[in-house]
Amino acid sequence: MGSWADSAEVLGSALPRELSGAGNRRAVLMAALRDAVRSGRLAPGARLPPYRSLAADLGLARNTVADAYAELVAEGWLAARQGSGTRVAERAAPAAPAHRPRTPELAARPVHDLVQGRPDPSAFPRTAWLASARRALAAAPDDAFGPGDPHGRPELRRALAGYLARARGARTAPERIVLCSGAAHGLRLLAQVVGGPWAAEEYGLPFHRGLLASHGVGTRPLGGDADGARVDGLTRRDRAVLLTPAHQFPTGGPLHAARRAAVVDWARATGGLVVEDDYDGEFRYDRQPVGAVQGLDPEHVVLLGSVSRSLSPALRIGWMVLPQRLVGPVVAAKGDREQFSSATEQLTLADFVVSGAYGRQVRRMRQRHRRRRDQLAAALERCAPHVRVAGIAAGLHAVLELPPGTERSAVRAAARLGVAVEGLGDYLHPDAEGGLPLGPGGRGGPGVAGAGRRPAPPARDGLVVGYATPSEAGYPKALEALCRSLPPAGPPSGAPVTPGPASPPPPAVP
Amino acid sequence: MGSWADSAEVLGSALPRELSGAGNRRAVLMAALRDAVRSGRLAPGARLPPYRSLAADLGLARNTVADAYAELVAEGWLAARQGSGTRVAERAAPAAPAHRPRTPELAARPVHDLVQGRPDPSAFPRTAWLASARRALAAAPDDAFGPGDPHGRPELRRALAGYLARARGARTAPERIVLCSGAAHGLRLLAQVVGGPWAAEEYGLPFHRGLLASHGVGTRPLGGDADGARVDGLTRRDRAVLLTPAHQFPTGGPLHAARRAAVVDWARATGGLVVEDDYDGEFRYDRQPVGAVQGLDPEHVVLLGSVSRSLSPALRIGWMVLPQRLVGPVVAAKGDREQFSSATEQLTLADFVVSGAYGRQVRRMRQRHRRRRDQLAAALERCAPHVRVAGIAAGLHAVLELPPGTERSAVRAAARLGVAVEGLGDYLHPDAEGGLPLGPGGRGGPGVAGAGRRPAPPARDGLVVGYATPSEAGYPKALEALCRSLPPAGPPSGAPVTPGPASPPPPAVP
Repeated sequence: MGSWADSAEVLGSALPRELSGAGNRRAVLMAALRDAVRSGRLAPGARLPPYRSLAADLGLARNTVADAYAELVAEGWLAARQGSGTRVAERAAPAAPAHRPRTPELAARPVHDLVQGRPDPSAFPRTAWLASARRALAAAPDDAFGPGDPHGRPELRRALAGYLARARGARTAPERIVLCSGAAHGLRLLAQVVGGPWAAEEYGLPFHRGLLASHGVGTRPLGGDADGARVDGLTRRDRAVLLTPAHQFPTGGPLHAARRAAVVDWARATGGLVVEDDYDGEFRYDRQPVGAVQGLDPEHVVLLGSVSRSLSPALRIGWMVLPQRLVGPVVAAKGDREQFSSATEQLTLADFVVSGAYGRQVRRMRQRHRRRRDQLAAALERCAPHVRVAGIAAGLHAVLELPPGTERSAVRAAARLGVAVEGLGDYLHPDAEGGLPLGPGGRGGPGVAGAGRRPAPPARDGLVVGYATPSEAGYPKALEALCRSLPPAGPPSGAPVTPGPASPPPPAVP
Repeated sequence: MGSWADSAEVLGSALPRELSGAGNRRAVLMAALRDAVRSGRLAPGARLPPYRSLAADLGLARNTVADAYAELVAEGWLAARQGSGTRVAERAAPAAPAHRPRTPELAARPVHDLVQGRPDPSAFPRTAWLASARRALAAAPDDAFGPGDPHGRPELRRALAGYLARARGARTAPERIVLCSGAAHGLRLLAQVVGGPWAAEEYGLPFHRGLLASHGVGTRPLGGDADGARVDGLTRRDRAVLLTPAHQFPTGGPLHAARRAAVVDWARATGGLVVEDDYDGEFRYDRQPVGAVQGLDPEHVVLLGSVSRSLSPALRIGWMVLPQRLVGPVVAAKGDREQFSSATEQLTLADFVVSGAYGRQVRRMRQRHRRRRDQLAAALERCAPHVRVAGIAAGLHAVLELPPGTERSAVRAAARLGVAVEGLGDYLHPDAEGGLPLGPGGRGGPGVAGAGRRPAPPARDGLVVGYATPSEAGYPKALEALCRSLPPAGPPSGAPVTPGPASPPPPAVP
């Protein structure tokens, strides 16, 4: 049968290098496991690695892996026996190679998509974008259609330098900006140039941690409290720290001014680098945007941004505002030509920014997101007044704080009602001590998961609710379904969750 | 104008930490204020906080702030009016950011660019491309603006499946195509999925070998002869072989039919993979295009292509036609979302292909390239009849075979005349035994390089002349300059090269 180390090796090469994104990581992992069994790469009877090991290897939350195992046992692909771990089921022989009927993404598409991080695709400003494309193509010099300079088009770097100074308080110039195909690409490049280890907020995108790990950069978790990341925990060993100062991802608070100053002091004293992931800095609702930390010290902070939330993740354009000393090395890491970002898209975005269309789109979406946030808060006030909502001053998502031990069952209850939503635990660093509350309020306590499959770490329970994705027509229905899936007030920790009674029975969901 | 609280916030994030230290606080505050105005973070007309407030916020003496304000009013940065406080002066607009004079690439641009692989950027079909963009944006479903499926847009995969079957004899279907951002991206993904080692033609792109090596995939060189790569040298150890069957890169011949069959046999017998880099398969001049090897056995050959030579390297779109068993793993290696290729560009290219504009552009460029090839051959016949020209039946470049030992000096002589051109040695695998001739004719022999800087391996000498890049007006001049840089007939091996006398003195090159 071999040891589970063999299986780990098979999985290591079979699984997506970057089990990415805010998407449904569990579904991707399950698809990869099914595929490995179906293809025979994982033989019948082969032992799988313990879920904790696999989670650590892949940079996933433990319960993501545990859930995937459990569901595949239920589907008959895997078998679990007391004391001998999880194995490939004996009868799960390789089937005839058949057509994949549908991609996992399509198969898993929910009725109500409340997964964070995705703007409503129907809000893309097609007409304005096309107008920019027309002007950009007409004005482009011929050399725009030759091999691309890896810095990125100068037109877009100039446009962004002006925009980021105005909108984000960045201190920059076109020569300090290097374009990339999104924040993920930027992180890859920085990992190559800076090396590890890095510190990272204990709550954050597993996708980002996985990316860094795949480039040999380990991350260690940095705890947080009501003022944001505990940057006093940074040491000389950390080569860089990955932060979301405008709006901690996903828990939601801004980094306190004293912490901003302290992290810059740390960088100056140690030569470390602050990587400021400004993923939704433009979407602040109750007061002015919190300026970028980069403005405090452009020589020690990288400002990392993209159009993925402000415009569309389908346009693969991001940027880094870099300390001068890093511009050369980052460009060198890109290679001697632009390999990823299309010049015509870069030129179109440059026109879109300079013409003011980008600012108009951001303002329009900010209004819409604010309205949706208000609708979410009102719905919860009505249907689940016991649920505290955090992180709503900004962004495209909020965190619903749940009683300890109810997160997994709440996610499953939501899924049964056609609501795709993620748990806070999906974002916790595997090595985190966890459980620190964001705002004033009690510690999360040793949350014991429903099925006892997640004994440690003690984590806060919560739902990360993205409110940007549904269409205008679909959003109210999504809120109704969410309400029905929330645990009722005051069940004992770990008790089974039934749909909340506080909400009146909604009409049938299509 | 907004309240001064906005300005206070800008200042709060902009002011340096040194304000709390010793030293001339007034000077530091003034520098920070100037900087905020110059950069635009404090807009013209913006109200500043009352000096008392700012002093309290910053822990400074009131008259330090009052003095700083007064001096900046005196300098013209700020304006003070009775009763309305202090404001940023209206004319204190952000200064133009200092221009970097030129990028390194521009600085190094030669007068005559005969480096292979780059289509003339002025030939990009802007109008037709924009028309496709307009239709594509209008027709796109909303989900095109959401996170992208890593397979690539179905519209483009359908378009390419049809096109590649017609134009390249590929056996494919949309489900077997995975889009990528160019051949390099495709090779990266295949390296991750297939693992090493690979065999590769001894002449090839160092860039590709380097990419593979950076993913842990070593390459070993496969010699060649008049029939192309010696695929009989493939073994069970080789996990894959990288070939350019339509037009060996850069030496120029097609892979013989017997070799095509043999390489497929090898793949079937060993489970190895044939990676067919179809980099210029559409540009064949003297007869029908040589069909893709992939058509012989779609389950053992990957067809790798892109628009970089047919349309523009500035559009970062490529494709892989994959064996069914590799579709899942390659998509998994891409991650669970599209990270690199823009959906709007993919949709635009889909329309461009389906509408026939792509075929028209390829035919137009094929005519132009054929004409340029003929001009090159005629010029050489006139000015350097002793120089044999190889690989001219197809593609965007030709190889000029030089007497042994003269390659490096010929490249240098060309550079002195403003001609950028590469030597055949630039493409030789470092471990190659080298020196095998492409066409019928004597073995290259142990060519000892002129300056003794390349003692081994013994390699053929030649220039790789790309004829696609110069503008229509610039091409004849580029040919004249090339002629002048070629070594004269019959110097002893290793002798110093002087400009060839066979060509009449051309007019001065601009």
